[in-house]
Amino acid sequence: MSLPASVTIVEVGPRDGLQNLRQVLPTADKVRYIGLLAASGLTAIEVTSFVSPKAVPQLADAAETVAGIRDLPITPIALVANLKGARNAVAAGVRRLNFVLSVSTSHHRSNVNRTREESLAELAEIVDLAEKIPGFRVRASLATAFGCPFEGQVPIAEVLRWVGAVATLGITEVTLADTVGFGNPELVRQVLLACRDRFPGITCGVHFHDTRGLGIANALMGMQCGVTVLDAAAGGLGGCPFAPGATGNIATEDLIFLCEEMDVKTGVDLARLCEASRFLQSTLPGVDLPSRVFRAGPPKPRGPISE
Amino acid sequence: MSLPASVTIVEVGPRDGLQNLRQVLPTADKVRYIGLLAASGLTAIEVTSFVSPKAVPQLADAAETVAGIRDLPITPIALVANLKGARNAVAAGVRRLNFVLSVSTSHHRSNVNRTREESLAELAEIVDLAEKIPGFRVRASLATAFGCPFEGQVPIAEVLRWVGAVATLGITEVTLADTVGFGNPELVRQVLLACRDRFPGITCGVHFHDTRGLGIANALMGMQCGVTVLDAAAGGLGGCPFAPGATGNIATEDLIFLCEEMDVKTGVDLARLCEASRFLQSTLPGVDLPSRVFRAGPPKPRGPISE
Repeated sequence: MSLPASVTIVEVGPRDGLQNLRQVLPTADKVRYIGLLAASGLTAIEVTSFVSPKAVPQLADAAETVAGIRDLPITPIALVANLKGARNAVAAGVRRLNFVLSVSTSHHRSNVNRTREESLAELAEIVDLAEKIPGFRVRASLATAFGCPFEGQVPIAEVLRWVGAVATLGITEVTLADTVGFGNPELVRQVLLACRDRFPGITCGVHFHDTRGLGIANALMGMQCGVTVLDAAAGGLGGCPFAPGATGNIATEDLIFLCEEMDVKTGVDLARLCEASRFLQSTLPGVDLPSRVFRAGPPKPRGPISE
Repeated sequence: MSLPASVTIVEVGPRDGLQNLRQVLPTADKVRYIGLLAASGLTAIEVTSFVSPKAVPQLADAAETVAGIRDLPITPIALVANLKGARNAVAAGVRRLNFVLSVSTSHHRSNVNRTREESLAELAEIVDLAEKIPGFRVRASLATAFGCPFEGQVPIAEVLRWVGAVATLGITEVTLADTVGFGNPELVRQVLLACRDRFPGITCGVHFHDTRGLGIANALMGMQCGVTVLDAAAGGLGGCPFAPGATGNIATEDLIFLCEEMDVKTGVDLARLCEASRFLQSTLPGVDLPSRVFRAGPPKPRGPISE
């Protein structure tokens, strides 16, 4: 099996993991949670989103959260959906943005209340803004790339069309997201290979939700197709508040167990990561973290395989 | 991706799924559950085990359960761990047995309270018994083939040794079981290819637990290696009572979603299977069925993929 020697896990627990929870975590708990994630070795962490506090009350403290983690040895990433959010993120000191745009019309409308074309025009302005600020980078996350909760299947041609649209703006990092877990490994393979063929200059990441149990299998297929950037949420919480039936991201613990057991290096200490999830669990009584490895406990170190 | 055109799902929910539950289900509920499983299209169903009622009180009603499902259009399978159990199963009318033997010494001792060699001698007697009864077939399930809760890693050579041992008795159907979810897709690939190379006359099935989140990815790798017989438990319950930390089997719903989405035929109606799990759930207040597809609901029928 051909796998990358190492991968970058983009930890989205503080953003995607929390955004759909009814119970609003105090900023101090978010800061501590992010600190524990960083202590496990995670360096790329999506720490919040700069979006309407009415739409996502959980993340209304985005600027305060960013201020609280200033001294951590990580690259904080913030999700934004429009130019205003991008400006607010920049003002808060964030230099890496994740711009979300759905491949399907109806989820895009439900999620950000505008057309995809309107969002693309805003993304163009964000890219202009980025050019004026040293170290500023924008990634595009294409939601519903493997299926839409309103429209069902999403044609691969439509995925390619929107990868092409953001590529035209000069964006080179794209994350393909399976918003409600409709993707299967064969579809993942087809979409990733089509993207690689058509846009060899684009680095594709993946973002899987485990809504229908295939998230880790999809992540493995992503790595088999050469993907080295994978989103995951510690504990396995998550889900888009504007996608009916959405449930958690693949759990970072489970993804790291998958990788490390197969000698794909992640740089993350699984036992310490479980401590971050344990803290998160302690702040959320009544919420069960779906991560299997978190529930089972980190595995014992293993020796070499020998016949 | 090379996958089989169709697979046989061996539904182990009534046996493995229930055996670890504290709450003992009435026989009538088990019979109804098995009936609903059969109505979904499942035909190979491990309905119970003939083992010590002290060891597994949940399945003390094995003979009554078998009597209750006599008219279903299925092939009932019973797990046994010794000659006495096999005789009891035969007396109850079962003609397909699944004999369990662990690859690791300590789990075998914990599970059946004898040595592997003693069990192998009993299996030889069961094979002799089988030759006298028309239609009688014995499969061997090798537990801890991908890791042991007591010993950790299990050498591939040891797996091959025990596949060879049961093959010597004339057994041609072997299930490799990951008792506590230590397996990863690369290990699964190595073990399955080693078995195929060394024992081309043996049909290998797989039995995965999702204790550490890799169960479905392991099942996919199994199919990629040519496996066409896969165990799963509706709802995703399960676990060996004598393996510390054991949790549920891969959920039949999730496995069927994986297969059918990739055009691997299972013959099972997913919506009807969810009805079986819904009934099971109704009999088990306070127990959460882990199956993701069961929780998310069966997916809507999809149209053809088109660019």
